[in-house]
Amino acid sequence: MEKIKVGVLGATGSVGQRFIQLLENHPFFTVSHLAASEKSAGKTYGEVMKSRWKISADIPSYAKDIVITLPKPSDTKGVQLVFSGLDSSIAGEVETEYAEAGVIVISNSKNHRMDPNVPILSAEVNPEHLDVLKAQSTPGKILTNSNCTIMGVTISLKPLFDKFGLESVMLFSMQAISGAGYPGVPTMDILGNVVPYISGEEDKAETEPQKCLGTVKDGQIVSAPFSISAHCNRVPVFDGHTVCVSAKFKKKPSKEEILDAWKNFSGEPQKLDLPLAPKQAIVYREESDRPQPRLDLDTGRGMATTIGRLREDSLFDWKWVVLSHNTIRGAAGAALLNAELMYKKGLIGSSK
Amino acid sequence: MEKIKVGVLGATGSVGQRFIQLLENHPFFTVSHLAASEKSAGKTYGEVMKSRWKISADIPSYAKDIVITLPKPSDTKGVQLVFSGLDSSIAGEVETEYAEAGVIVISNSKNHRMDPNVPILSAEVNPEHLDVLKAQSTPGKILTNSNCTIMGVTISLKPLFDKFGLESVMLFSMQAISGAGYPGVPTMDILGNVVPYISGEEDKAETEPQKCLGTVKDGQIVSAPFSISAHCNRVPVFDGHTVCVSAKFKKKPSKEEILDAWKNFSGEPQKLDLPLAPKQAIVYREESDRPQPRLDLDTGRGMATTIGRLREDSLFDWKWVVLSHNTIRGAAGAALLNAELMYKKGLIGSSK
Amino acid sequence: MEKIKVGVLGATGSVGQRFIQLLENHPFFTVSHLAASEKSAGKTYGEVMKSRWKISADIPSYAKDIVITLPKPSDTKGVQLVFSGLDSSIAGEVETEYAEAGVIVISNSKNHRMDPNVPILSAEVNPEHLDVLKAQSTPGKILTNSNCTIMGVTISLKPLFDKFGLESVMLFSMQAISGAGYPGVPTMDILGNVVPYISGEEDKAETEPQKCLGTVKDGQIVSAPFSISAHCNRVPVFDGHTVCVSAKFKKKPSKEEILDAWKNFSGEPQKLDLPLAPKQAIVYREESDRPQPRLDLDTGRGMATTIGRLREDSLFDWKWVVLSHNTIRGAAGAALLNAELMYKKGLIGSSK
Amino acid sequence: MEKIKVGVLGATGSVGQRFIQLLENHPFFTVSHLAASEKSAGKTYGEVMKSRWKISADIPSYAKDIVITLPKPSDTKGVQLVFSGLDSSIAGEVETEYAEAGVIVISNSKNHRMDPNVPILSAEVNPEHLDVLKAQSTPGKILTNSNCTIMGVTISLKPLFDKFGLESVMLFSMQAISGAGYPGVPTMDILGNVVPYISGEEDKAETEPQKCLGTVKDGQIVSAPFSISAHCNRVPVFDGHTVCVSAKFKKKPSKEEILDAWKNFSGEPQKLDLPLAPKQAIVYREESDRPQPRLDLDTGRGMATTIGRLREDSLFDWKWVVLSHNTIRGAAGAALLNAELMYKKGLIGSSK
Repeated sequence: MEKIKVGVLGATGSVGQRFIQLLENHPFFTVSHLAASEKSAGKTYGEVMKSRWKISADIPSYAKDIVITLPKPSDTKGVQLVFSGLDSSIAGEVETEYAEAGVIVISNSKNHRMDPNVPILSAEVNPEHLDVLKAQSTPGKILTNSNCTIMGVTISLKPLFDKFGLESVMLFSMQAISGAGYPGVPTMDILGNVVPYISGEEDKAETEPQKCLGTVKDGQIVSAPFSISAHCNRVPVFDGHTVCVSAKFKKKPSKEEILDAWKNFSGEPQKLDLPLAPKQAIVYREESDRPQPRLDLDTGRGMATTIGRLREDSLFDWKWVVLSHNTIRGAAGAALLNAELMYKKGLIGSSK
Repeated sequence: MEKIKVGVLGATGSVGQRFIQLLENHPFFTVSHLAASEKSAGKTYGEVMKSRWKISADIPSYAKDIVITLPKPSDTKGVQLVFSGLDSSIAGEVETEYAEAGVIVISNSKNHRMDPNVPILSAEVNPEHLDVLKAQSTPGKILTNSNCTIMGVTISLKPLFDKFGLESVMLFSMQAISGAGYPGVPTMDILGNVVPYISGEEDKAETEPQKCLGTVKDGQIVSAPFSISAHCNRVPVFDGHTVCVSAKFKKKPSKEEILDAWKNFSGEPQKLDLPLAPKQAIVYREESDRPQPRLDLDTGRGMATTIGRLREDSLFDWKWVVLSHNTIRGAAGAALLNAELMYKKGLIGSSK
Repeated sequence: MEKIKVGVLGATGSVGQRFIQLLENHPFFTVSHLAASEKSAGKTYGEVMKSRWKISADIPSYAKDIVITLPKPSDTKGVQLVFSGLDSSIAGEVETEYAEAGVIVISNSKNHRMDPNVPILSAEVNPEHLDVLKAQSTPGKILTNSNCTIMGVTISLKPLFDKFGLESVMLFSMQAISGAGYPGVPTMDILGNVVPYISGEEDKAETEPQKCLGTVKDGQIVSAPFSISAHCNRVPVFDGHTVCVSAKFKKKPSKEEILDAWKNFSGEPQKLDLPLAPKQAIVYREESDRPQPRLDLDTGRGMATTIGRLREDSLFDWKWVVLSHNTIRGAAGAALLNAELMYKKGLIGSSK
Repeated sequence: MEKIKVGVLGATGSVGQRFIQLLENHPFFTVSHLAASEKSAGKTYGEVMKSRWKISADIPSYAKDIVITLPKPSDTKGVQLVFSGLDSSIAGEVETEYAEAGVIVISNSKNHRMDPNVPILSAEVNPEHLDVLKAQSTPGKILTNSNCTIMGVTISLKPLFDKFGLESVMLFSMQAISGAGYPGVPTMDILGNVVPYISGEEDKAETEPQKCLGTVKDGQIVSAPFSISAHCNRVPVFDGHTVCVSAKFKKKPSKEEILDAWKNFSGEPQKLDLPLAPKQAIVYREESDRPQPRLDLDTGRGMATTIGRLREDSLFDWKWVVLSHNTIRGAAGAALLNAELMYKKGLIGSSK
């Protein structure tokens, strides 16, 4: 069976590099289109990335000889889907151009996230949100990932939200420096330090989970009606966002009920056995001091959500700690899992 | 005027070293008694500390020739007050022995903190708690510092608690490794990592602030009736505990009212112009990304509390970030400030 | 074919953990004996290691149920070979006991390294040194790995030594904290810092490479006659020792001759296609700023030696930078590769 | 007595900030001219630096209201001397313009360093090099600091060079990230990592010490005739360059002779009691594991050179470790000390 031709927009950036890595030898997709800024356009990916490749493994050989183009749908010949790691300063417009040209766009940028008929799709959490794509007027469609910080949080909330209802959620994040891209955070700002501020992050953390857990109504997504307050912090960790969560439920569950809900949580990616799906979407660690980025980051090849420290909260009902890999599960991996889901559901590719 | 003779218990540990440093050339006190474990007893401080002194400055010369003894009140000839940086495994008993021998003990250990007639004294916050010392039956008296994590938090709450009343407080800490003493945290556990757990810390953070802000009644301290929930985390920062705070008040203040309360906050240390008192107890930073350990740690020679990022909270009323120096303001400095307060109030020394 | 039963001495330590990990599903060996100190003896490995396992992956399930014993050869029933990650304070004696009991000991400790009929074996470098095992009087035999710091250095020197002869070598190391085991380096000593001293390290670095590159004469190893001077430093890197090397040759080679020698370097592990052998023993990076621990550590699954920055030296002939993974190539992996080599050569196992 | 008016070129950069800090309340100099790029020109220093000030202390109040100008000598009214922290891309030309306009320029940039009649001045090492300023044809004069890496090295060599002569020197540096300015090194490149390359650094390290230790002949500086080979590395340390040194002398001294030479080393800054001069130019630490950036950086308020680990070298004669503060002693502090020296010698100011 022939593979679907895909592209990566913003291929030279941090998220772009992860896409290139995760798409190596992919069973459904083959990369034929790499787009970046004028500085790189016209050169091969291997040439441009020689000293800019920052992942601990070589540039996949398939990518080295692809000539980078500008992010223009006219150059994509046969590409049915693009993964976008574009900077938000240009992502909004460029992604719309691709969608108008008939290409499916799976984006990591914030630009279209809060559009009512654009899903913030997390394959285990809200696959039914794919329904609203029909309501988009363009021949291609746009869907997005959530912000990397709330990816694991939303997964940890999903089975509890379904069973016990949510009233309010408090979030405190300790976010890795890779979340700021490259060159990103200057070392003088973060070495041996913490910075209790990340521009725009708290706004996203306080609105995106409700949309992810929302319902589809008349071709639009209606956010779930609970409140979130977030404190977002940058810490000197390379990869992996750790979030402390306190939550109040409509109906307070027992500890066992929560642990059961997490252990049994399984979504479409697991049912459809998608290539990138972690076997267990949620892994709960019993040790008193877990999850930790260094020890738990690679659980499920970076695609699982690790939770620990479930205990009662004197102000809310329960509190816990969530870790997820911000550039895999929180960005490129989530987008690719979404693409795999669409492929298996016949929303892209030969079966279209 | 002759200086008061004082001692340091646990003189070789991290907190002990800070005491030695801060007591150099002190106008009220002179160190004549250094106590530590059997391994060090009988040797001079300079000899023992040659490769164990971890503060970026030399061992003060006054301390080098003092011969270390075991922590026994019988060895203290003329010492009126001891600062205790003893490990909690022995602090409880040893401190009681000193008090029974007529020595005032100012302790950093948790052992006596929750005794109803032992103050958790923070000189700007609750100097009136010194009244309960009378209710202690021993000739000497024991008073304590709060846990280092909640020191700055309690200072940030004090003027707001007085004016607007507190209903509930959410705390999320990012704590420096020096808080665990030496050798303390193994590098393999924390380099490029965060650990979302510190043994016993959340319990202290959820009970000590209420006692600090409590009232004296019949020779006992009655904790203030508000609730706290805490998430405590270790981060790869050398010195400086950063705490995110969300608070709900009895009567919600305006932003200006809070800022005014902080800016005008001044306590007995400032009125009495105590040697170690920071001119401004609370420093509020207007920048969007402050306080940070690296930039704000030394404010007021490590004795001020730095606050920033005051903003509304969708679940509580207001949220902000507090930083204080955990081994100075949160430990040795706070204890010394308490001693200075007692001295000026005539509770120790010639005026006794 | 039945697998050879092996054991791990010092199974709970850092090197021991790596052995457990690398031996999972090994085609030649099966672990049936785990030995550690009294504190752990009598308990299962899974129980003991629950909060002590420090590798980013779970404890292999095969190891969890093995009951730890004391390091005594009497308990080893059928074990033909043990890997020793014992502390040097006891390794010397214990390893001799095992050898006397007929067990082959492959050791990471320094104790026996400089014995004239004990090889410091590096499978690509000096497989012919296995000949001296015959000269050992015990029924079992002892062989050792080199110190982790000079492992990659010696591999980088080997093909040049063979072709051009060596006169003198200058070494400057920047060593990872995992080299000191667990708990090892206290965070207060190394966070945001470097320590220009590692006890005993420079002595090893100045003598072991000459023995590795030495010749067998009358059942003994005679060290190669060149001089080394070393500066050893600890840096805040998790895994991976980086070493700057300057070398003077008997006959100064051209740059191309050196690069050719490295690129074509291949030893018995490659010829015999040993399970743990990296395809390329030496990987040379052309980029100006490589090798780096973060980017190059996992080359050849941590078993390759990465070199970069070959350039002329105004005092010596040439200088370059070498990186190798200190707990894999520099310790457990090297030992296992040595065991694989012995197995394939018929020195252990069924063919014995 | 009236203070000399001085300026700072590149006032907003890392080195510029240190100048602003060190010049606060200076007894000889008063800052009246701050120059930076077009982005900042026309605004006050306080306004521009609000979120860019990276030193752990507030912006000195004297500087806050100074309006930044472009680096043009026409704007300097009455300024007799400028400290230049300009980027080397523009420093060469701009500094010449100031010199042509009659201003003394003390530069941290490399541009003019190797000009034969421009000293690389280190006040304790080569004050006699000030003589060559006469040979410069401009009314103002240009002098430079050495590269930050070799500053402490050259100080450690000076008394040995004078007494025992130097044949060759090997240098291995572990350099702090502040040496790269701000934003400088991206965190993704250096957190938990080392980078064995710093562009252009080895060239400077291999030529500047010889010029510093050179002799004045016919109005030009003739470099001392010994050879240096350097390996330069970046490590995750905030401030403080640590350098391992191996040296071969014309006449091999004893250990005592070297220690004596260092302990008795004193230069013009000490004799003239210059405000910024450290009492002891060189501090030798007896501990086996010193110097270390964290513990020794602030010795002599960042102006002293700390040395440790003197031991014999099997290839050279002796080896040791040197630490100096790269942004104070290695940059702004050295330049200011040079200015103080010129002032006291009557080369600037009222006595001119």
